[in-house]
Amino acid sequence: MKKVDYTLYVCTDQKLMSSATIEESVEQAILGGCTVIQLREKDSSSREFYETAKRVKEITEKYQVPLIINDRVDIALAVDADGVHVGQSDLPAKVVREILGEDKIIGVSAARVEEAVQAEKDGADYLGVGAMFATGTKTNTRSVSIEYLKKICSSVQIPIVAIGGIHEDNAASLKNTGIAGLAVVSAVVAQPDVAQAAARLKKIFVE
Amino acid sequence: MKKVDYTLYVCTDQKLMSSATIEESVEQAILGGCTVIQLREKDSSSREFYETAKRVKEITEKYQVPLIINDRVDIALAVDADGVHVGQSDLPAKVVREILGEDKIIGVSAARVEEAVQAEKDGADYLGVGAMFATGTKTNTRSVSIEYLKKICSSVQIPIVAIGGIHEDNAASLKNTGIAGLAVVSAVVAQPDVAQAAARLKKIFVE
Repeated sequence: MKKVDYTLYVCTDQKLMSSATIEESVEQAILGGCTVIQLREKDSSSREFYETAKRVKEITEKYQVPLIINDRVDIALAVDADGVHVGQSDLPAKVVREILGEDKIIGVSAARVEEAVQAEKDGADYLGVGAMFATGTKTNTRSVSIEYLKKICSSVQIPIVAIGGIHEDNAASLKNTGIAGLAVVSAVVAQPDVAQAAARLKKIFVE
Repeated sequence: MKKVDYTLYVCTDQKLMSSATIEESVEQAILGGCTVIQLREKDSSSREFYETAKRVKEITEKYQVPLIINDRVDIALAVDADGVHVGQSDLPAKVVREILGEDKIIGVSAARVEEAVQAEKDGADYLGVGAMFATGTKTNTRSVSIEYLKKICSSVQIPIVAIGGIHEDNAASLKNTGIAGLAVVSAVVAQPDVAQAAARLKKIFVE
């Protein structure tokens, strides 16, 4: 499962979803061409997170799209997800690698070259770099310029997805920067037609 | 490490602590006779929880007192804690047992006979039963009478600690109910002299 297509990496957000259920949102994103799903549940109890992850995994498995769990390594283990994404205030990548073993995908958020290099050294499989643009989804994120994104891309060997405020009007500016794909939240899951939004974004990036 | 003395089970709470650091609080509680430490960090990032757990584990290891992590199975794995305590809105005990294997301690919160019986069936090593008395530490807890506590104790084989609003003035009423020990938060960690508070509570229960 380690050979991953990072072209369109979609993160969920219960608060922003246009669909009635998270499963519906995920299925529509996949039908629109999304290649990785990250499940992020910051306000749920562990039980709720686990139950949601179990339901979402049925969808991702059906379509053979990798399911990455945000932060919670235990939830990833509990549902046998494909991997975990950790930020700089989550468990260190090195510790996550020890817990998950070699076969699972580990992604790390990085906003600086040093963080990117360290994450690669610690065993990360990919990086999420941003925030590229102003975003309403996450607060307190550090911003990254297009030039600096290129610098991060050239400083590591592992694939990078750009994240933070990416939408149809600015996605084209991220082409030819060295990234493997776009990571989005509201630009897909908050749109009236999730599948079409995913398809349009993907088209902008791959064409 | 499975042979555990549950006599005085102390849960931490950063917000209630009288000591400057959680390590100091834990060390004083152990010096006063506390036999199990549960680390509960509901408002920390995963990284902070991990860093705190690593520091606390140095203390619990020094005194050979089991360290139980509340809710977060991944933090327990990350620091190789002795076990995990899960409530009814955390990961199911059965799933936790699959992740942790047979050697780690799993505790489950139960307020009903059915929950207690289920938890024992799912592989719990001990139960936390309460809330016994009114408490400021946790909101939305269901209350358990002394008579009902006895009923739960007689319905399972595994050891039970009573929890919830237990302090020096009411601890004696929990003797001869079938419990293995007292679980406390503020009655120890919020007291001006943590070690003495632990020693006094333990004396009330064991004498």
